[in-house]
Amino acid sequence: MSRPRAYLAGPEVFLSDSAAVIASKRELALSYGFQPNGIAEEELDPTGLSLFEFGRRISLANEKAMRGSDLIIANLTPFRGISADIGTAFEVGFMCALGRAAYGYTNTARPYFERLRDDYYHGAIAKTADGATRGPDGMMVEDHGMVDNLMLDGGIETLGGILVRRQVEPDNLWSDLSAFEDCLRAAAVRFGLARPT
Amino acid sequence: MSRPRAYLAGPEVFLSDSAAVIASKRELALSYGFQPNGIAEEELDPTGLSLFEFGRRISLANEKAMRGSDLIIANLTPFRGISADIGTAFEVGFMCALGRAAYGYTNTARPYFERLRDDYYHGAIAKTADGATRGPDGMMVEDHGMVDNLMLDGGIETLGGILVRRQVEPDNLWSDLSAFEDCLRAAAVRFGLARPT
Repeated sequence: MSRPRAYLAGPEVFLSDSAAVIASKRELALSYGFQPNGIAEEELDPTGLSLFEFGRRISLANEKAMRGSDLIIANLTPFRGISADIGTAFEVGFMCALGRAAYGYTNTARPYFERLRDDYYHGAIAKTADGATRGPDGMMVEDHGMVDNLMLDGGIETLGGILVRRQVEPDNLWSDLSAFEDCLRAAAVRFGLARPT
Repeated sequence: MSRPRAYLAGPEVFLSDSAAVIASKRELALSYGFQPNGIAEEELDPTGLSLFEFGRRISLANEKAMRGSDLIIANLTPFRGISADIGTAFEVGFMCALGRAAYGYTNTARPYFERLRDDYYHGAIAKTADGATRGPDGMMVEDHGMVDNLMLDGGIETLGGILVRRQVEPDNLWSDLSAFEDCLRAAAVRFGLARPT
């Protein structure tokens, strides 16, 4: 039986120790019976390409890898702001449209509403005349009790996946793989894989 | 002939004058021959639903509207940080996976690299021993000359759409619809629609 192919999405490529973290994630996926899928950017040759053309080559390779995958496991830990990495969000949407199994995790237990209220607005939100809660810039402060934007949480839920929240030590925000492993465990049950030995 | 259905994506629902801006966008889309598609959140009844369940209802309605649309026009103006609205990014990915026509625009001419370097890292980026440019947090600073993450720019390019950049007055960041209209104009040519009268 061929292994289900798992597209491992997340902003790990930007980390200073990206190769080590990505290798750990691939090994863990393998141990649960999945074939980790996705491109290694260093395998793509930028020779003779403009910066834009090289970026496009990565995009095309990622889209192809997603179409060839049975599920996505997305790291939705907030990245460079209060929301998940936007490229990862694109990829979750991509896989949801294809109806593939979708799993997500975040290494913070704080919901989007708290990050928006405290980290972005520093508490300065208030109910306004129209009944909505808004920031000083007039923007509506939404609260759906979700990890991030409702399209992400909703899309994963619709496809029967799980979205794991774990609070990890700040120093381990990008290296702690327990929540990633929670996703692997749930997906392994769904795909009828044996437990790792 | 029935009008092509255009899914109008963007964070406008959060604006203090959301109803007016959304109405203007819909009227403009109509004037170019498109049927504006998408849900009006106020038409969904939250009675008896938890916050999460209501969010999920919105997500389901949006996914259904996207599947019933011929193209997406996405407002990718940076929202609550240096990147586009993450829900909109999910939606662009969703439509790219379905192979629908995708158009995007942003009301700032500054590319992602500049926003990352100046707004997020306040200039504190440097080349490191591995040859990559990184911020003080060790994260790689990518530069593909793109509007945002390469999955967004790349996905739109792959489907033959355009991604319009316009620098507007700061006060008009969310009300200026010239770049949106650039997308409508390009999409109207592609869908063989007559020019607006």
